[in-house]
Amino acid sequence: MVQKFTFGKPFDTEAVVQEIKASKGSLPFGIARKKDGGLCWTCPLFDGDKIFGLGETMRGIDKRGYAFDSFNTDQPNQTETTQSLYGSHNFIIVFGKKTFGLFVDYPGRVKFDLGFSNSSELCVQTARADADLYFFVPQKKSGSLKEIARAFRELTGKSYVPPKWAFGFCQSRWGYKSAADIEKVWKTYRKLGIPLDSICMDIDYMKDYKDFTVDAKKFPDFKNFSARLKKDGVRLVPIIDAGVKKQKGHKIYEEMLAKNFDCKNKSGTTFEAGVWPGDSVFADFLNPDARAWFGAQYKALLDLGIEGFWNDMNEPALFYTKENLKTVFARLEKFKTRPLDVTGLFEFTGTANSVLNNADDYKRFFHKVSAKRAGAFAATKPDKDKNVLVCHKDVHNLYGYNMTRGAAEFFETQEGALPLLYSRSSYIGAHRYGGVWTGDNHSYWGDILLSLQQVVSLNLAGFLYTGSDIGGFNGNTSRDLLLRWTAFALFTPLFRNHSAFGTREQEYYQFENPDAFKSMVELRYALVPYLYSEFLKAAKGDGLFARALAFDFEGDERARSVHDQMLVGNEIMVAPVYVQNAIGRHVYLPEPMTMVEWKGGKVAAQKKLSKGDHFVEVPLESVVFFVRNKKKVPLAAAAPCVDKIDWTRLSFVGDKSAAYELVDCE
Amino acid sequence: MVQKFTFGKPFDTEAVVQEIKASKGSLPFGIARKKDGGLCWTCPLFDGDKIFGLGETMRGIDKRGYAFDSFNTDQPNQTETTQSLYGSHNFIIVFGKKTFGLFVDYPGRVKFDLGFSNSSELCVQTARADADLYFFVPQKKSGSLKEIARAFRELTGKSYVPPKWAFGFCQSRWGYKSAADIEKVWKTYRKLGIPLDSICMDIDYMKDYKDFTVDAKKFPDFKNFSARLKKDGVRLVPIIDAGVKKQKGHKIYEEMLAKNFDCKNKSGTTFEAGVWPGDSVFADFLNPDARAWFGAQYKALLDLGIEGFWNDMNEPALFYTKENLKTVFARLEKFKTRPLDVTGLFEFTGTANSVLNNADDYKRFFHKVSAKRAGAFAATKPDKDKNVLVCHKDVHNLYGYNMTRGAAEFFETQEGALPLLYSRSSYIGAHRYGGVWTGDNHSYWGDILLSLQQVVSLNLAGFLYTGSDIGGFNGNTSRDLLLRWTAFALFTPLFRNHSAFGTREQEYYQFENPDAFKSMVELRYALVPYLYSEFLKAAKGDGLFARALAFDFEGDERARSVHDQMLVGNEIMVAPVYVQNAIGRHVYLPEPMTMVEWKGGKVAAQKKLSKGDHFVEVPLESVVFFVRNKKKVPLAAAAPCVDKIDWTRLSFVGDKSAAYELVDCE
Repeated sequence: MVQKFTFGKPFDTEAVVQEIKASKGSLPFGIARKKDGGLCWTCPLFDGDKIFGLGETMRGIDKRGYAFDSFNTDQPNQTETTQSLYGSHNFIIVFGKKTFGLFVDYPGRVKFDLGFSNSSELCVQTARADADLYFFVPQKKSGSLKEIARAFRELTGKSYVPPKWAFGFCQSRWGYKSAADIEKVWKTYRKLGIPLDSICMDIDYMKDYKDFTVDAKKFPDFKNFSARLKKDGVRLVPIIDAGVKKQKGHKIYEEMLAKNFDCKNKSGTTFEAGVWPGDSVFADFLNPDARAWFGAQYKALLDLGIEGFWNDMNEPALFYTKENLKTVFARLEKFKTRPLDVTGLFEFTGTANSVLNNADDYKRFFHKVSAKRAGAFAATKPDKDKNVLVCHKDVHNLYGYNMTRGAAEFFETQEGALPLLYSRSSYIGAHRYGGVWTGDNHSYWGDILLSLQQVVSLNLAGFLYTGSDIGGFNGNTSRDLLLRWTAFALFTPLFRNHSAFGTREQEYYQFENPDAFKSMVELRYALVPYLYSEFLKAAKGDGLFARALAFDFEGDERARSVHDQMLVGNEIMVAPVYVQNAIGRHVYLPEPMTMVEWKGGKVAAQKKLSKGDHFVEVPLESVVFFVRNKKKVPLAAAAPCVDKIDWTRLSFVGDKSAAYELVDCE
Repeated sequence: MVQKFTFGKPFDTEAVVQEIKASKGSLPFGIARKKDGGLCWTCPLFDGDKIFGLGETMRGIDKRGYAFDSFNTDQPNQTETTQSLYGSHNFIIVFGKKTFGLFVDYPGRVKFDLGFSNSSELCVQTARADADLYFFVPQKKSGSLKEIARAFRELTGKSYVPPKWAFGFCQSRWGYKSAADIEKVWKTYRKLGIPLDSICMDIDYMKDYKDFTVDAKKFPDFKNFSARLKKDGVRLVPIIDAGVKKQKGHKIYEEMLAKNFDCKNKSGTTFEAGVWPGDSVFADFLNPDARAWFGAQYKALLDLGIEGFWNDMNEPALFYTKENLKTVFARLEKFKTRPLDVTGLFEFTGTANSVLNNADDYKRFFHKVSAKRAGAFAATKPDKDKNVLVCHKDVHNLYGYNMTRGAAEFFETQEGALPLLYSRSSYIGAHRYGGVWTGDNHSYWGDILLSLQQVVSLNLAGFLYTGSDIGGFNGNTSRDLLLRWTAFALFTPLFRNHSAFGTREQEYYQFENPDAFKSMVELRYALVPYLYSEFLKAAKGDGLFARALAFDFEGDERARSVHDQMLVGNEIMVAPVYVQNAIGRHVYLPEPMTMVEWKGGKVAAQKKLSKGDHFVEVPLESVVFFVRNKKKVPLAAAAPCVDKIDWTRLSFVGDKSAAYELVDCE
């Protein structure tokens, strides 16, 4: 099923957990050649061929027809033509005339031209000519998509499983500036009876944006505060940023430098760049000792009662370096005399905007790894310990992955349940250590659809614990957008309402008739036994929790092309409404299903629908979902938090004569 | 039907052509009060109420649920949350429990909160408390939408009708730098047999971006060149920018200043700002003499054989002023020592980006108008001629309108057929003088849908001659996107493939199998007799050429909510495919219709479909459209340009026993 081909001397990304001997001879699909200093692999595309995969990217479930650029990027202005997001997941399945999977295991930039430049050619280009290509050739005639997906996970390892409470609802916002702000969220949700399991703490909780600190002025007696919340079933989930503030006396800053765990400039001095705290330094997560050291820092917060974290800014995002700023200011200076005309205007604004995530800045710093691991990527001769430096740019996509890995590996050394952990940046392999959220999206109706498309693609890359910022992170949401988004997101494992500083406040109680939101969150909690069971089945069986219809209905041409519905577990299909002012939507059923309408905190209607096309009315305050043929879905009674869900008192929707197997119901 | 209410002393925008006496007493709908220095009109919104209108804006046909900001803006980064585009069209129809129209005749900023802040309230806020509100109360129970739309046009005047050749295909690109570039386009289209009626000339044709000049080096003997193209049925359509280069010896620059036709700073000196040519000056289009003078400049190009123009940059876009640049540089200077941290980063990039279309710059300059016209907007005492100055900011939305009006009024004084004229910026009233294109869109799939929604909304505002840049102006298009976009745009009056400098070249011959594009353009030419006839019927009868299904099927709840289909003339319904890799789409038919598939340059299939929902397969190289019940559509035989279409040899699709009336078939 899996064949590995090694070109040159690749960097060992540690994405793969299965030992596979490299094949010799010709590739089973396509042709590889050297081009532009890298490896160029091409293969023909035929009419009707589809391309699934690429994890966290823009566009539809079928990625054919566009070009993507795997290079982890803090990209707040996501549009249809954005080619890079926070994670790089170089796994695709070509499905059609010849069906196969391809994983391009490469730590730096990889370009995927999926029939964009030439609609009948697929082209993959790595920055350097040292890479491992894994081909997946299905053995069975039917079910080839699921077969390839499973083989990929067997190659890359079991998916991360979060604690059960992480399936509860999370309220978040960049802008909760004190314990009082958070207490207000907690108390208001409880007062209104809207279930809640966690509140995220964005960068505001830290002292001067310093990792692993809590501002004692804004959060006095934090340990007691977190314990009070936890007693009521609410966990606090703090953010951890990649950049560590450069400040004398800041313990981890000083320790990092003392231990030489910092990323270095080529000259061996500490690499500095600006992020939220201003001038910052960056741990070398590719160095196993540095990674372990940084992971151990999480203990400071575990000791305060924290059981969940989200790792952010770990592409890493770089706001500026002093070196680049000099260049920027020198270039801007010229515009004091030069007009901002046809060529000047864009050069002026482009220059100013080039402070952020500047390509040259990613060339300035280096990681220390073993010469063996570095392969052809070594930028220096081996030192006495047989370590070499590699340029960050060449291994850029591994940074966030290894930050998360460091935390997870530390958590495994601790007693008690594993904490919740998810990350913004990632690479294949990171799915073993944590989940991801889909980053800084917008209050766009289109981003409901985008989040569905990203969730199914991320599942295929192994990231089962995932979800989008409900209501949109950037921009101002509206009540109807938040309702429709919630009605979809309640089916995704990570179920978090999050928004940016300066935007409209969007906790559910900020809008008219919060009961409409309450009803939807209650459905989520009713579904937790189902969602958790299905998640475990997928994680343990190397299956897909959420997936495109194509995966279960390969032979159905219509099903294969559906871009805006997904299967959740083995029993449910969802079809969100993502058009403002819509009264419903068209849904394609690849088999007969039971349509369930949830309204006012309960099942309002169940109706059997035939295979085929239906226009389904979906009132704004209702959730409509579909139970698959000859299956049933358990619903639990209302509970304020996951811990209080009674897994033994369940009702069912769908075909009640069907069987349903709960997993890990404690 | 129409009631006018006058608040304070409004500025006469000259949007209205019907003399209507202002009513006294209470408003028929909602409440008006003074707020924040302006007029605030509010009215309740009920479940199911829809809001049509607002012309060129983002979002769906039903604008309910979002907030818009009428302030003409050169906005290249259009997203779902963009609130201002190039034109301001302050006319809405509230359709539902109480159906009525409202036209807010106000020359400056108007905010429309259509149930965004509060989902059950509509709120309109003008910047100053001097405005005319026109209410439209339907007299009939059914057909109220069409009745209101017609009354609005009776109030604001007949829509512009372009020459017949303007219904042909236009190829355009920012980047045709010479006669040779244009000759290549012309000859290649002719060689491939793809019909073509015009080629747009973007700013490249001018000498140093100077209006009404032609670069003689790049375009030697331009008069002969344009005559050669015209002989072959191809017109050249040059762009005219609002900004006039400040350059000694540049005739219109010197003349404008000599005649005092320039916009002035408050001190009376010439207002200068930068645009494409660098430092520029701006004619005071609100001064009738200046407007007429600028309009007369078009003669220089008419004399070279030009018969069509597009007015651009006339919001006006301002790249910079020297005054603002000083402020910007002073603010940037601080960041040489201040870190780009949590507050610094966005302030730094925000400062640099604030050179463009800066709000303060719009306060810097003034227009001269009669004291009577200015009402409460006078910023100075009347001079001896009873003229006053008004601040540009207060009357901003009228600038592009009056640039276009100046040209149109001049054209009326000339012999021969009226030239083609369309504009980027506009206000209600400009629809009497020219068309509009929808500005600098992107190579987004979503922009196909957006263009449909803008076309129907612009029709409602009176702009019947309109269309989007096919394939997208910004960004790189792909073959499939261009095919799907063309398949929709061939039904819009303005049918232009246009793209920005630096993007992928997107003339139809740049892609595999140009015959697929040829087939679509041929359908356009087959439809010209129909489209032109229907356009004239709408223009002369104050009707809507393109419109939402709601306008013809008011009583059909499903039809009222359709956001992605439109009626074109009285016979055709279109339902574009705007999802990449889709094999078709769902279509709602509010009555039985004949589905027509056009493929390979001819009608490939006709099929009767029943009222209701259908999934319709639409192959990538086909065009599918629908002929309404008991109607037929004429199709002409293939022709290389509009002049050569034979209006007497027609075939028909649809119900051949139906009648069809051609208009102006010469």
